[in-house]
Amino acid sequence: METKIYIAFQGEHGAYSEEAAFSYFGESIITVPCKNMSDAFESLKNDEVNFAVVPVENSIEGTVGVTYNLLLEYNLMACGEVFQRIKHCLISLPKETLKTIKRVYSHPQALGQCREFLEKQRYEAIPVYDTAGSVRLIKAKNLKESAGIASEMAARIYKMNILQSGIETNQNNYTRFLVLSKKDHDSTGNDKTSIIFSTKHAPGALSDALRVFAKRGINLTKLESRPIIGKLWEYNFIMDFEGHRTDKNILSALMDLQKNSEFIKIIGSYPKGSVSN
Amino acid sequence: METKIYIAFQGEHGAYSEEAAFSYFGESIITVPCKNMSDAFESLKNDEVNFAVVPVENSIEGTVGVTYNLLLEYNLMACGEVFQRIKHCLISLPKETLKTIKRVYSHPQALGQCREFLEKQRYEAIPVYDTAGSVRLIKAKNLKESAGIASEMAARIYKMNILQSGIETNQNNYTRFLVLSKKDHDSTGNDKTSIIFSTKHAPGALSDALRVFAKRGINLTKLESRPIIGKLWEYNFIMDFEGHRTDKNILSALMDLQKNSEFIKIIGSYPKGSVSN
Repeated sequence: METKIYIAFQGEHGAYSEEAAFSYFGESIITVPCKNMSDAFESLKNDEVNFAVVPVENSIEGTVGVTYNLLLEYNLMACGEVFQRIKHCLISLPKETLKTIKRVYSHPQALGQCREFLEKQRYEAIPVYDTAGSVRLIKAKNLKESAGIASEMAARIYKMNILQSGIETNQNNYTRFLVLSKKDHDSTGNDKTSIIFSTKHAPGALSDALRVFAKRGINLTKLESRPIIGKLWEYNFIMDFEGHRTDKNILSALMDLQKNSEFIKIIGSYPKGSVSN
Repeated sequence: METKIYIAFQGEHGAYSEEAAFSYFGESIITVPCKNMSDAFESLKNDEVNFAVVPVENSIEGTVGVTYNLLLEYNLMACGEVFQRIKHCLISLPKETLKTIKRVYSHPQALGQCREFLEKQRYEAIPVYDTAGSVRLIKAKNLKESAGIASEMAARIYKMNILQSGIETNQNNYTRFLVLSKKDHDSTGNDKTSIIFSTKHAPGALSDALRVFAKRGINLTKLESRPIIGKLWEYNFIMDFEGHRTDKNILSALMDLQKNSEFIKIIGSYPKGSVSN
């Protein structure tokens, strides 16, 4: 008998995070929707699920601050990454057409990303909590002349009709997700590592920290300063680089970094993700 | 006769961006609400206003990606900065009390930041487009048993009642705004400079770029990698540092940086902002 794998994600069934979970693990998993991002972390901490799939960065909106605050708070590790194309669909009850629609429901961020389309069609935009939830709402309340903006998967789940696909203004819309677990991934030879660290707030401190990686030829793929909550205008740095934390040169870089840092937290090493459409 | 100064901001009257504009310029300005952030940039570009005040970073949510995309797109410059405390208030019609409220309207981000309070009071949270708009809605529709979450200023403007102030879970909630104009600010001796640049995606490229600043003792206050839209997984870097772009050592650092960069855009030099409550 096969053991089922349970995956927590934030949002309702049909959320882009759930799409990312299926892209990464395949179709045989059991996905567990969580109302808030912190609920997804909590259920993994309490072993109610095997993994959580959480967004860390979107190519238009930038870093997801809430996720990094939770990565600092919880002792969970990244064991995988997946890049998911965000392709917004206009979804309605079966009898509607583009011409019968008057009102469009979705999360404010999705409405914003589809603004040109909505204005051209002269639809009224109505904000709701999340993208997939807008489709559920229209189905549950049998809302006529209405559509939601959500993923293709949301249309499949709620058995609703896609009036138009890819209605976002900028089609280069990808979200990067981390797969979280209680431990990270063994070395595969094609890995990335995520860490959070803080340096002393002094000239050159960050540059010295980065030189530790540069002089070993380690390639950085993300670097970001984040205010430390409760310590106004002191900063943590989020850093991703190529390599596994057990590689000899990475290990020596991390030991070197420790000398320059007030604090280092290793989020984990994991195989580099690929892009799903 | 005094000439009036016009300031564009995104949101409705009573938005936190408008509070920041008054903190920076004082009470005698004329504020011009803009539906979208791009409208604020556009109206400054077209000389319909003298300045725009735009959010760039929040201590909880992180960088405001949309603003940086527009800073890249438009040739406008930063001439000032202001840090605004985000203090969420529960606002209602005069006859309500904490006990009579059942439903709370606000932007999803504000609802999220006040989640502990809302759950403790067992209020139903209802998302709307923006914080100040929730107060206008309750007033316009005379909504009973309802409150909005918005700034103190929103309560003043719509002549509504503050039931409780500072209902956010994390009180260290500040937003950093830039004041935009067609040119930046002259040197004052206590300045910051914002730039956006990209390096070749190669080991050490970023570290080399930062060394340019470190070896001159220039203190970095923000550094962030941002995906370049349309060029998946190539990165721009947003950087803030202490000093004015006309200072001798800054000028020489920027000329040095140019050799290592594919592209540099100077957003502007401006006096360091202080924190408003």
